Amino acid sequence: MEYPSKLIENAVEEIAKLPGIGRKTALRLALHLLKQEKEDIRDLSEALVRLREETRYCDQCFNISDATTCAICAGTKRDRSVICVVEDTRDVMAIENTSQYFGLYHVLGGVISPIEGVGPSDLTIEPLVQRILNKEENIEEVILALPATMEGDTTAFYISKKLKDLEVKITSIARGVPVGGELEYTDEITLGRSIMNRQKL
Amino acid sequence: MEYPSKLIENAVEEIAKLPGIGRKTALRLALHLLKQEKEDIRDLSEALVRLREETRYCDQCFNISDATTCAICAGTKRDRSVICVVEDTRDVMAIENTSQYFGLYHVLGGVISPIEGVGPSDLTIEPLVQRILNKEENIEEVILALPATMEGDTTAFYISKKLKDLEVKITSIARGVPVGGELEYTDEITLGRSIMNRQKL
Repeated sequence: MEYPSKLIENAVEEIAKLPGIGRKTALRLALHLLKQEKEDIRDLSEALVRLREETRYCDQCFNISDATTCAICAGTKRDRSVICVVEDTRDVMAIENTSQYFGLYHVLGGVISPIEGVGPSDLTIEPLVQRILNKEENIEEVILALPATMEGDTTAFYISKKLKDLEVKITSIARGVPVGGELEYTDEITLGRSIMNRQKL
Repeated sequence: MEYPSKLIENAVEEIAKLPGIGRKTALRLALHLLKQEKEDIRDLSEALVRLREETRYCDQCFNISDATTCAICAGTKRDRSVICVVEDTRDVMAIENTSQYFGLYHVLGGVISPIEGVGPSDLTIEPLVQRILNKEENIEEVILALPATMEGDTTAFYISKKLKDLEVKITSIARGVPVGGELEYTDEITLGRSIMNRQKL
């Protein structure tokens, strides 16, 4: 495709690097930006640069944080004996939104994926082991809340192997038919697992 | 939704201002950016700012351009007696891609839309009239290639009224069943118009 100017070509190339955004959408976004106030574009661009350059991570759970220790880890009303292990910040936000969990978190920063070149050493698994080994922290249970994908399962398996000799209970969030879900529209694997893992009423 | 840091909240707010991007997608994009190299984010952000601050428009057709006059208007092999009127740059690119049109263009910068607060004076309609009045340019035909929407039709009607007393032929691109389109899947209005505007073989 031939662009009318170098500037727009360059902007489209940069925007199209974002995941899920193709060249057509990138061009639409670029033309939208052209119609906005200069100040708005400067605000957007500054927000992106500051996000990347100034974002800090909690020194305990590795969640994104404004301070050295995040609000959850620093919270006085949290149950400090349970750690919920998640893939990224979005999962922390989703679980916090349920208002059903009051323990701590540990953000891995991804899941093991040989295809994408992510190995165990790219994740915060070693610091997790250290948190559990640290007797002062007194962790009693680790809940694995990882995605129900091949990569998520691999990561859960790797972590449970790493932790199995430590004095800590390891659990995983329940898999089954979603609340409000019809049995006939549930895929076979989920339905099969939900029967295998049936619970006493 | 509560964000883990001010920086990410700010970035999500700014990204979510883009058309078609909600908060969930904005958060996904922000977390993606956090994993990229600092330099890549600076490149993206600079491309956006430069796009907005340095983009120029052709002084003849108002298309986006690197120079005072765009490559098409400055081209020596174009048919300078025909002007094709379009909504924006994307339409110029789409028509150029067909390799079927060799005339000039005129980019309106939008279509008349009372709902979005776009009136005739927000568009480059007056400069279009001036181009046709300018006897040196010697324009013989104006092709209206506007979207087949209420706004596009309104704009076409407004322009044709403005030009009707000038010595210039006004045409519109053909509307009908798309090439390769099945009659039974074509909507009634398009099919009805395609019968009304039938052409001699």
